[in-house]
Amino acid sequence: MTKFRPLHDRVLVRRLDSEEKTAGGIIIPDTAKEKPMEGKVIAVGSGARSEEGKVTPLDVKAGDTVLFGKWSGTEVKINGEDLLIMKESDILGIIG
Amino acid sequence: MTKFRPLHDRVLVRRLDSEEKTAGGIIIPDTAKEKPMEGKVIAVGSGARSEEGKVTPLDVKAGDTVLFGKWSGTEVKINGEDLLIMKESDILGIIG
Amino acid sequence: MTKFRPLHDRVLVRRLDSEEKTAGGIIIPDTAKEKPMEGKVIAVGSGARSEEGKVTPLDVKAGDTVLFGKWSGTEVKINGEDLLIMKESDILGIIG
Amino acid sequence: MTKFRPLHDRVLVRRLDSEEKTAGGIIIPDTAKEKPMEGKVIAVGSGARSEEGKVTPLDVKAGDTVLFGKWSGTEVKINGEDLLIMKESDILGIIG
Amino acid sequence: MTKFRPLHDRVLVRRLDSEEKTAGGIIIPDTAKEKPMEGKVIAVGSGARSEEGKVTPLDVKAGDTVLFGKWSGTEVKINGEDLLIMKESDILGIIG
Amino acid sequence: MTKFRPLHDRVLVRRLDSEEKTAGGIIIPDTAKEKPMEGKVIAVGSGARSEEGKVTPLDVKAGDTVLFGKWSGTEVKINGEDLLIMKESDILGIIG
Amino acid sequence: MTKFRPLHDRVLVRRLDSEEKTAGGIIIPDTAKEKPMEGKVIAVGSGARSEEGKVTPLDVKAGDTVLFGKWSGTEVKINGEDLLIMKESDILGIIG
Repeated sequence: MTKFRPLHDRVLVRRLDSEEKTAGGIIIPDTAKEKPMEGKVIAVGSGARSEEGKVTPLDVKAGDTVLFGKWSGTEVKINGEDLLIMKESDILGIIG
Repeated sequence: MTKFRPLHDRVLVRRLDSEEKTAGGIIIPDTAKEKPMEGKVIAVGSGARSEEGKVTPLDVKAGDTVLFGKWSGTEVKINGEDLLIMKESDILGIIG
Repeated sequence: MTKFRPLHDRVLVRRLDSEEKTAGGIIIPDTAKEKPMEGKVIAVGSGARSEEGKVTPLDVKAGDTVLFGKWSGTEVKINGEDLLIMKESDILGIIG
Repeated sequence: MTKFRPLHDRVLVRRLDSEEKTAGGIIIPDTAKEKPMEGKVIAVGSGARSEEGKVTPLDVKAGDTVLFGKWSGTEVKINGEDLLIMKESDILGIIG
Repeated sequence: MTKFRPLHDRVLVRRLDSEEKTAGGIIIPDTAKEKPMEGKVIAVGSGARSEEGKVTPLDVKAGDTVLFGKWSGTEVKINGEDLLIMKESDILGIIG
Repeated sequence: MTKFRPLHDRVLVRRLDSEEKTAGGIIIPDTAKEKPMEGKVIAVGSGARSEEGKVTPLDVKAGDTVLFGKWSGTEVKINGEDLLIMKESDILGIIG
Repeated sequence: MTKFRPLHDRVLVRRLDSEEKTAGGIIIPDTAKEKPMEGKVIAVGSGARSEEGKVTPLDVKAGDTVLFGKWSGTEVKINGEDLLIMKESDILGIIG
């Protein structure tokens, strides 16, 4: 099984589909210009690195259900699964 | 009941409708190009995080009635309710 | 009576009308492309907040008569009165 | 007599007219795309303020004759006199 | 044999071809607008240098298999081999 | 004789004409899109000032022959002589 | 013989021609949109200077063979020779 370790302040996220979203209680209005989406965090980087080299661990962790902007992140397919790599700053908040 | 924890310096806000606004004494002029709106803070993030990792708690807290620019924030629906996620810096001030 | 506390480095300003301006000795030339305006400070925020969380109190205070760019700030109506919310950095100086 | 205190790193400047400039020895070439102008500093702010709140007094002082870019600053009329409010960084140097 | 030492926070990367990618378990969807690519790190710079001159060693090292944006980096040919020079910040994460 | 003290990190430069340039050994190719020019430093400011108010003296000094981009600086005429005011960062290097 | 001392974080570079490049083992693909070029460092500045005045010596030194982007730097002719002045950050790495 291929493993992927995001670099620095990046996180690997599995997008949750609409049914799961409805179950979770979050419904995104169709009319919104930039609809946030729900996802599950799969892996996180070691942390944001300041210009002086100080590493600050991320606030989200593997297993968190998060909300993020629809156009956030870069799509990849790992072990046949469609996933997203994004920066922690693209995440709006943690659900539940 | 789904809970939502905004990340970092973000806040979750419930927009107040026009009637409530009139009651609160704030009326937004119709002719203004960018009309501020009134809202109630539902939840706040743990604070703004500097590049060096220092967390500064937010000045607004859950329960505050706040004024913010009409186009601020991202719309979401949580537990069937339309809410907004915005950064504290989008908030102009606290009412009352 | 509704009170409004500006956030951080913002100030609440009441625009002074032309007659009052003439009395104060400041006349804005009609031909200026971006005419500054005179106003009275009603309330000020707790201060500018640095990335590291240090708060620096503002130099202007409630009661000051100030000059600011014509297009500065956001219009609001509080207790039926038209007011402006702007950042202290939009204020050019203090009169008198 | 109305007094005006520029805020932070701003200065209040009285533009010197062409005759006075010729006398001072500085002549601005007509063909220059952005012609600098000569002026007399009337009042200066308390100093530039860093993000951390440290105030650095300005290098120019009231009475200095300065050179500045033709389009620098904002025009105001104080006590019937046309003056300019600009930032110290708009000033190219001190004459004499 | 020519050697190449990337400067500062740059890394030298050998692009992996599609077959190798499939073997590694990562398949990039054809429909993605900006498809990430897999590569092998050949050499890394001494580290990111802050404005104050502090050097922070890179997190990736020679031999790492990495994922990076398709348009990242600059193409060069060293010893007859097509390689890429990119910044560490262009690397999304480490595989395996 | 009028004196001019450049402010902060600015320098006052006398452009050297083509003959003098040829003598100095530097010839600017006619086909270059942005041709550097040679000049003599007449006066320098007290130094670059950081946001915290620290002054760093300039590396160039009066009398230095310098190379600078053709479009650098602002033209002025002081005591009947055409001169340039530019920032030290516009200077590419020192000749001789 | 004219000498040239680059200022701060600038370096003076002699472009190596195609034959020499082939000899060195680096061949730039013709189809690359932005082809890097090989050069020899002739002189380097005293170092990058931070806003606070701290000087960090450069990593490249006179005699280094370097790779840089084709459009980097400014062309000059010193002692009849075509040379380039560029910032150290324009250099991709050191060869050999």
